Amino acid sequence: MEFRPDFTSSTTHQQEHIHIQPPEHCKKELCDLDYSQDPPRILSNYLVHAPKPFNAEPHLPLLINSGHITPTDVFFKRNHGPIPDIRLQDHRIYIGVQRQNQSNRNGLTAAPMDIVEWKVLTMDDIMNKWPKATITASLQCAGNRREGLAQVKEVKGVIWKAGTISNAVWAGPRLCDILRNVAGVPEDLHHEMIRNYHVSFEADDHVKEDVCYGSSIPLRKAMDPLGDVILAYEMNGKPLTRDHGFPLRVIVPGYIGARSVKFLQKIVVQPQESNSFFQKLDYKILPPWVDASNVDSAWDLAPSLGEMNVQCVICTPMDKEIICSSKAITIKGYAIAGGGRAIYRVELSIDGGKTWEAVDKLEQTPDKISGMYWSWALWEKKVLKLHTTSELVVRAYDSSGNMQPEFPVWNYRGVMNNAWFRVSNVTQMPQSNM
Amino acid sequence: MEFRPDFTSSTTHQQEHIHIQPPEHCKKELCDLDYSQDPPRILSNYLVHAPKPFNAEPHLPLLINSGHITPTDVFFKRNHGPIPDIRLQDHRIYIGVQRQNQSNRNGLTAAPMDIVEWKVLTMDDIMNKWPKATITASLQCAGNRREGLAQVKEVKGVIWKAGTISNAVWAGPRLCDILRNVAGVPEDLHHEMIRNYHVSFEADDHVKEDVCYGSSIPLRKAMDPLGDVILAYEMNGKPLTRDHGFPLRVIVPGYIGARSVKFLQKIVVQPQESNSFFQKLDYKILPPWVDASNVDSAWDLAPSLGEMNVQCVICTPMDKEIICSSKAITIKGYAIAGGGRAIYRVELSIDGGKTWEAVDKLEQTPDKISGMYWSWALWEKKVLKLHTTSELVVRAYDSSGNMQPEFPVWNYRGVMNNAWFRVSNVTQMPQSNM
Repeated sequence: MEFRPDFTSSTTHQQEHIHIQPPEHCKKELCDLDYSQDPPRILSNYLVHAPKPFNAEPHLPLLINSGHITPTDVFFKRNHGPIPDIRLQDHRIYIGVQRQNQSNRNGLTAAPMDIVEWKVLTMDDIMNKWPKATITASLQCAGNRREGLAQVKEVKGVIWKAGTISNAVWAGPRLCDILRNVAGVPEDLHHEMIRNYHVSFEADDHVKEDVCYGSSIPLRKAMDPLGDVILAYEMNGKPLTRDHGFPLRVIVPGYIGARSVKFLQKIVVQPQESNSFFQKLDYKILPPWVDASNVDSAWDLAPSLGEMNVQCVICTPMDKEIICSSKAITIKGYAIAGGGRAIYRVELSIDGGKTWEAVDKLEQTPDKISGMYWSWALWEKKVLKLHTTSELVVRAYDSSGNMQPEFPVWNYRGVMNNAWFRVSNVTQMPQSNM
Repeated sequence: MEFRPDFTSSTTHQQEHIHIQPPEHCKKELCDLDYSQDPPRILSNYLVHAPKPFNAEPHLPLLINSGHITPTDVFFKRNHGPIPDIRLQDHRIYIGVQRQNQSNRNGLTAAPMDIVEWKVLTMDDIMNKWPKATITASLQCAGNRREGLAQVKEVKGVIWKAGTISNAVWAGPRLCDILRNVAGVPEDLHHEMIRNYHVSFEADDHVKEDVCYGSSIPLRKAMDPLGDVILAYEMNGKPLTRDHGFPLRVIVPGYIGARSVKFLQKIVVQPQESNSFFQKLDYKILPPWVDASNVDSAWDLAPSLGEMNVQCVICTPMDKEIICSSKAITIKGYAIAGGGRAIYRVELSIDGGKTWEAVDKLEQTPDKISGMYWSWALWEKKVLKLHTTSELVVRAYDSSGNMQPEFPVWNYRGVMNNAWFRVSNVTQMPQSNM
């Protein structure tokens, strides 16, 4: 079934690979970042938080009414720099393995001496040399619902509401196949390399924080037959749009969106996690005693985030909404857990948390091959009549018995806020009163 | 490396297996359960909640001071009936595969017609025919800390405090090897059978709730090369004691203790989870609106528990403790997460939750083969001086960013309570005042 590209017998690759060097990234000054070539966007679909870099989330009612699969032009957009303008036929993906040399392994030298041999793939290789896997997966920014933490105390980052999550169909080769064939990563999940190494991804872009966007995941996640990590060149049945990573991005299901690197250019299998700003100095749940005054020395106090925590949000109605209806109203939202875990229950309260009921409908579809729960669960509940100025609250349990906490614990980067979601001051007004 | 028992060429097994039937269990009346042959116990190590069946947890200071590996005579004891008196040489393990027949699969008949062929193993087979795997894993009863929920409202079950968890070294063959060799379960994790089937375990015992103790886990967990499910005949380097499941028990790391069935007699690979009382009518997080008045019709509202949630407990000092010391005192406890996830941080407050600090020491060792975190993390924090009548609070984050909730959400069976752990009215009294 599986096509294995024969790099060893290919004269071109055999002779080239020892000389191949990926292009060097150079750090740009903030004023040198050129946003003039960014793609056009349907702005009316979004709450735009920042135009440069473009960061926008769909309005919650639009998000939920778009259904299980979020249309590409509703999907949230998270960027750290200008959208690179990459030509499909020119794009190359560089793959290297970085090993510590023997003396370092024995602890005899302090500094690792790393050896990297680069191999190179064209987009044609990516699209034709391995089976195409199709994975439906939600991406959620670790900063989704940062607004809730910003209300506690000042945080650093885009003040996202609860729309920085979307669900799409992604297609491309499995990363495990490529790493086995091209980088020679072993199959055995117990192998020392798989247990201890990471896969680092670098984008072909310019950002304000580092030489390019970069991130890494444990090699184990990449090689897990149930991990479903792919290099996607398609989103919702069409080539990736530029905003979503054209021509190639990583999809790391079950992980925070930051690990699904867009505009993918470099893949390095290495003994330690990425040194990128976005791995080491960002996307961490810092302890609550770390704030702007002491953060510089505090990054090592927290590990880099991987899997998402359990999350549940009411998308409609929204805060202060006046619902003009004498009939039952339908409350709708999403829920998701990390690591492929399922959502086991969603409970709704229409009296601020005093009493709870189960939602009427809770739909979550596992991946049809791996059986893992990478997609969000959409839920609905019919409520006959709201109290005057009701406070609606929702909370979910995942399949490992974890529940959302009632109150958020503040952290400086405002990430992973999964406190019970509250919608306040919703008023139902019978139509006869209009 | 791996020995494969050749059941097909063994005349005995080949001819016998179609006739083999495991002994039938018969439900005993409560008054017929005979506890007179229960083993002796060191009662002073335990807080005994019930003598028949024997249910006891170690005192928390003893538990924590026993170190990373809990000595067998300190390990908590959870029973549902008398301890069976099984002779090693007479014990047999019956393994069957239950398949739905073709017509049922096509939906043509309402009732499944199941075919089971039994194979039988002696303890000698178990101990010699497969490689012996050694796994260090914590077991935690799903009812650990039920006391905290009982304080909210009446719950059903033994009112455990926070000592229903212990950590031990277990040894025996991997269940995946046995299921592949004996039951013919395929290797491919994407196989339909692995995705959809369960492995059901039955004990050779008598209990008050059902014909015997029974439970099941997803077949996927059993076959996962990183799942580390074993059939253990050793605990802490010695044969299992009777209280801990002699001669053979399942160890399902990362799951609630109830799935690690003791006195193992029957293993069935089947298309649905176990019908046992302990799978279907117990060990579920029921919704908070379900209580004694409506529970009978509510069991289907909740799925059976598998993986544990994130948990953290202060073992010493305890509630109302008076510490006679002018020096710094050391606060100690444990933390654990389910599914092999790591504990990423433990935070302690000595002012009832107003301010928090990281603990000084947090040690958690992954399994040396799979790299999964099956053992608890033990932590310590030195505190120079407590406030008068301090309230100490502790909370942990796991590697998927889940945190313990501040307050417990009550459920009728009182399971999976992982609210922030509080120790109240601790007084530090300088020694000069004594």
